[in-house]
Amino acid sequence: MDAFVMEQIGEIGSAEKDVPDAGPTDAIVRPTKGLVCTSDVHTVHGAIGERENLTLGHEIVGVVETVGEDVDVFAPGDRVAVGAITPDWGSLAAQDGHPSQSEQALGGWKFANVKDGTFADYVHVNEADANMAHIPDGVSDEAAVYVTDMMSTGFMGAEHAEIPIGGIVAIFAQGPVGLMATKGAELQGAGHIIAVETVPNRQELARTYGADDIVDFEDGDPVEQIMELTDGEGVDAAIEALGTSGTLEQCVSVTKAGGKISNVGYHGEGKHVSIPREDWGVGMAEKDIVTGLCPGGRLRLQRLLRLLERDRVDPTLMTTHEFDFEEIDEAFRLMETKEDDIIKPLIHFE
Amino acid sequence: MDAFVMEQIGEIGSAEKDVPDAGPTDAIVRPTKGLVCTSDVHTVHGAIGERENLTLGHEIVGVVETVGEDVDVFAPGDRVAVGAITPDWGSLAAQDGHPSQSEQALGGWKFANVKDGTFADYVHVNEADANMAHIPDGVSDEAAVYVTDMMSTGFMGAEHAEIPIGGIVAIFAQGPVGLMATKGAELQGAGHIIAVETVPNRQELARTYGADDIVDFEDGDPVEQIMELTDGEGVDAAIEALGTSGTLEQCVSVTKAGGKISNVGYHGEGKHVSIPREDWGVGMAEKDIVTGLCPGGRLRLQRLLRLLERDRVDPTLMTTHEFDFEEIDEAFRLMETKEDDIIKPLIHFE
Amino acid sequence: MDAFVMEQIGEIGSAEKDVPDAGPTDAIVRPTKGLVCTSDVHTVHGAIGERENLTLGHEIVGVVETVGEDVDVFAPGDRVAVGAITPDWGSLAAQDGHPSQSEQALGGWKFANVKDGTFADYVHVNEADANMAHIPDGVSDEAAVYVTDMMSTGFMGAEHAEIPIGGIVAIFAQGPVGLMATKGAELQGAGHIIAVETVPNRQELARTYGADDIVDFEDGDPVEQIMELTDGEGVDAAIEALGTSGTLEQCVSVTKAGGKISNVGYHGEGKHVSIPREDWGVGMAEKDIVTGLCPGGRLRLQRLLRLLERDRVDPTLMTTHEFDFEEIDEAFRLMETKEDDIIKPLIHFE
Amino acid sequence: MDAFVMEQIGEIGSAEKDVPDAGPTDAIVRPTKGLVCTSDVHTVHGAIGERENLTLGHEIVGVVETVGEDVDVFAPGDRVAVGAITPDWGSLAAQDGHPSQSEQALGGWKFANVKDGTFADYVHVNEADANMAHIPDGVSDEAAVYVTDMMSTGFMGAEHAEIPIGGIVAIFAQGPVGLMATKGAELQGAGHIIAVETVPNRQELARTYGADDIVDFEDGDPVEQIMELTDGEGVDAAIEALGTSGTLEQCVSVTKAGGKISNVGYHGEGKHVSIPREDWGVGMAEKDIVTGLCPGGRLRLQRLLRLLERDRVDPTLMTTHEFDFEEIDEAFRLMETKEDDIIKPLIHFE
Repeated sequence: MDAFVMEQIGEIGSAEKDVPDAGPTDAIVRPTKGLVCTSDVHTVHGAIGERENLTLGHEIVGVVETVGEDVDVFAPGDRVAVGAITPDWGSLAAQDGHPSQSEQALGGWKFANVKDGTFADYVHVNEADANMAHIPDGVSDEAAVYVTDMMSTGFMGAEHAEIPIGGIVAIFAQGPVGLMATKGAELQGAGHIIAVETVPNRQELARTYGADDIVDFEDGDPVEQIMELTDGEGVDAAIEALGTSGTLEQCVSVTKAGGKISNVGYHGEGKHVSIPREDWGVGMAEKDIVTGLCPGGRLRLQRLLRLLERDRVDPTLMTTHEFDFEEIDEAFRLMETKEDDIIKPLIHFE
Repeated sequence: MDAFVMEQIGEIGSAEKDVPDAGPTDAIVRPTKGLVCTSDVHTVHGAIGERENLTLGHEIVGVVETVGEDVDVFAPGDRVAVGAITPDWGSLAAQDGHPSQSEQALGGWKFANVKDGTFADYVHVNEADANMAHIPDGVSDEAAVYVTDMMSTGFMGAEHAEIPIGGIVAIFAQGPVGLMATKGAELQGAGHIIAVETVPNRQELARTYGADDIVDFEDGDPVEQIMELTDGEGVDAAIEALGTSGTLEQCVSVTKAGGKISNVGYHGEGKHVSIPREDWGVGMAEKDIVTGLCPGGRLRLQRLLRLLERDRVDPTLMTTHEFDFEEIDEAFRLMETKEDDIIKPLIHFE
Repeated sequence: MDAFVMEQIGEIGSAEKDVPDAGPTDAIVRPTKGLVCTSDVHTVHGAIGERENLTLGHEIVGVVETVGEDVDVFAPGDRVAVGAITPDWGSLAAQDGHPSQSEQALGGWKFANVKDGTFADYVHVNEADANMAHIPDGVSDEAAVYVTDMMSTGFMGAEHAEIPIGGIVAIFAQGPVGLMATKGAELQGAGHIIAVETVPNRQELARTYGADDIVDFEDGDPVEQIMELTDGEGVDAAIEALGTSGTLEQCVSVTKAGGKISNVGYHGEGKHVSIPREDWGVGMAEKDIVTGLCPGGRLRLQRLLRLLERDRVDPTLMTTHEFDFEEIDEAFRLMETKEDDIIKPLIHFE
Repeated sequence: MDAFVMEQIGEIGSAEKDVPDAGPTDAIVRPTKGLVCTSDVHTVHGAIGERENLTLGHEIVGVVETVGEDVDVFAPGDRVAVGAITPDWGSLAAQDGHPSQSEQALGGWKFANVKDGTFADYVHVNEADANMAHIPDGVSDEAAVYVTDMMSTGFMGAEHAEIPIGGIVAIFAQGPVGLMATKGAELQGAGHIIAVETVPNRQELARTYGADDIVDFEDGDPVEQIMELTDGEGVDAAIEALGTSGTLEQCVSVTKAGGKISNVGYHGEGKHVSIPREDWGVGMAEKDIVTGLCPGGRLRLQRLLRLLERDRVDPTLMTTHEFDFEEIDEAFRLMETKEDDIIKPLIHFE
């Protein structure tokens, strides 16, 4: 079968691979639609170390091709969403309420990390009953593919922020995860949503997804702008959706005493991430910093699909570009350069 | 009346002051016993900026001298514990569940910060009904004085750590707050308590308060020692009770994915406090960092006094030195130098 | 001044009373708009026992007439919303996170319970800084009056239900509190909202506020209907907004193992409220039953007003009738009979 | 192999059965020690309906005989504790944080319910890696067998009660689960523990496990006695460990507004369980009723074993009787009659 792989750090290309086999609890899925994630680009650049001939990708929907003998919920021909994170549900971390950390830190993240990813003709899904969900009739593949990572991760950012109903929240950066955190804040009942972003089409989409105010950091210090928008009070919660030490610091600074800083950004660089000591209340201001990795699992996927089924959110507005599977290298190139105001490229597999 | 004051940064001494008046909801208390806190020393060194002729101290028990007309719970002659933190209970932060942050970050901390402290012949207590508690018969002043700050702060460190019953916890530094965090971990049902400390009498007291293992950082990297003690798994929760960036980093490193870092240390130096990026799981390992300031309030004080009443803990083991009020400058000197293995000096006011 | 009072059980009428005085932390407010609550009707019928010449009402907005000397946040002339529940914020229950239970069970409920209510020319507000909020420009009195009870109580029902994002929730009864619980479920990100109601204009409004499905109990057993709508799975959470043992039982029956039953109904009759033993999983199915009384406080009011300010909800759709203060007895009569499809009658005071 | 079975409702006896086979993720364990549970007696009496020739028992420790090919953590010869509750960890309920409810209400309870129990020469354990734990050296089988149900269930009762540190708790009934709830309350830092019980040896053991006061319901209404012991305030939390409507009602009555009622009792009789309407604050006093079924899983078992390893609790004090496997019918008879002050009978399998 064809696969789109990372040959080694810095090198991508096509490869011919064997169709994977399904163990007793596994499924093999044939992708129909996929999305390219910036983290795929990070992986290619070596963020998680060397990989050799590793199939890339972790966001797909598709059709079940075969299932193992102990798979009860799915059958060949079923239309399914596959979680980007596919935990080992019996692991100690899952038993502890942290399935995404199963077996090791970030251990639920398997695709294009510890095993082949999803950009191939066939994809192997572990613990299939637990890690996939049926796509309801009336929900398109083009929309459903967003539940696998973008909606799950972005909404988690808002959930971890514990925004009180009517509360004030600031979301730093409006890439696809930040945009879904913005929508998530609306879905959690926030009363005032402030989105920090400088790219015009992202600003516009942020408004569509619920932002009341846009703070453009090219117009001045975002901390000052947010303090002004909140009459000097600061926000109940700040969501970091970029992954830099600087934005995390800004999140701490704009959050009022007793508020939450929710990190969803992937911090890819540097030895340390910094907390501003004084704005953190010298460690006593009850500004907690919480983090997470995309929640997976059939239950989560079903719940997110239910939101699509009832038109609570339209994630397809983020699809700025479309490519056939054969053109996926061009999608990668654009995600790297962020040219052409790309937000999310949709891949058609058939 | 006599007061022990910070004349200006770096200068302490005695002063003659007027006896304070009680507003309608206030009380005036005559201290009987007090404790000197390292934070008093920090204050004198300028940690919270310049102060002029400010009475020091925040940990006392005493006898009610007068009460305002709207005080219902207390009457002159009552033996009371006075919270080190005396929140404004109607404030927005208190309504939000963060009374210690009332009106502003750390705003519940009033004594020797925004008003005269407790090392004087008479002490003014705001919202007396809400911020003091009667000391039960059978509980000595010498023990009760520990509920005002040390027990409340240290136990909070363990509560914020959300230690599962039978879980593993490491407490970094065994000063009086760290020792009470160790005892707090035992009171929360921890199954394995690791205390990090190098001073022998503190190590010994840590064992008395429930530590199963002592990690001496002079014997090697505490992170490595703790990973070895936990078979490479790391701890469910780590408590920072020193207030340095280095120990916070170690807390993050020894905590397993999905665990909690509970900060109780006062971070007094530097522009930033650092999080080690990789050990923090690049911001996605669900290692949350939570912070707090000593909980105050009559309810909290009553609950802590109940633990003394029923001999669940003996905080007086931390009283290594005793002084009369007239000798308090010597107590301060020792708390600054930490000479003579001092842990906590008790002040007798009468 | 004029007041609308309960003369004794079963008797209502007008009375002439003295204008109340403001103590140091109190305010006197002149109502502009008010709403009549079914609980006022219950009170008149003796639900909380005998009362003599007690002014009725607890839902008003108005203008500050005078303030006590220790009131900082408000001044005469300010346009304010007054919480229906006005807690004692320094009380032990408030310190414990339950301000509505201050001093005693339901103790935060003072208006038309333990002191004169709000249907008078002037109203006394205790702890004014903590228990009122400024109404933002652009928010009408007609809308703002809904934050004092209906929005706060109804939304609490949804918050206590801990509806997961995309989860399924059923709300039993669509009176004004149930309608706001329905809207609250939408504001919390529910993925499937089922409203139980039989009155047509309430059904229609339920749809407007977010209900996906309406279950009419006149069409058959609502438990069966809801199990069918959820493919036999049951709901993640059920909200009781009527106050009968029968609906609470139905809530337990439709909730799946591990789900939440959130009670907001006032249970006014009978010695017991019943839990169906088997559907409750013989006490081991992790179906928790949680309850609450309308949250009060300036912070809560501000947050709810923020939702009005940004058009997240339009509560005025519930205003089916309007009366001048002189006609308030007719509003009471209609709330008692529920004639003319009344949902909520608005009272104009000037 | 030999098995001790329920032949039909009301009939127990020995049976010869085939040794079970292990599927890929299962293990076969040879019991060494076991405990008889009152719920076994309930089962025989028909509490969960008819069963034919079903092996009884769910509390054992033993030695691994064989493991399936996908079992990684355990090997033949390992000394293990087997959870009484053995969830399906990939199920939706487990993903939702309720593994004991996997697949259906109480679905994690498989032994002697939906499959053969543990009183046999060999026992089949599903998802062995997730549902067993190694017994540490230095922990006896006689102690370890208590982690499988009694400690896990009883401690859960205290955890669900969310007892504040220094708080007041009442535990109704001091059978083995109630006794472990009492010990659990101590392990959670309760400041005042009240145990309700009338049997002398249970009263004495309750004191050993941390009870400060014993309320004997034969001395008068336990509600009145507890209100007196708490100066009319009531308790922060009450734990129901008997399983009758009457004790649940008493729990609601003694709990103060804002407190928790934690149910661990198995309610085996009647159509309804009752809540006293007025003492429940007409559904608005924030007295929440929470329930649970014994938590299972390797992580839980490991944590409980850690408490034994470090002598935090000695459950063997509850072992009042001992029998060989051949005499198990006599143990059943005593658990039914509660003769001879039996608390828990230990079964020796070899």
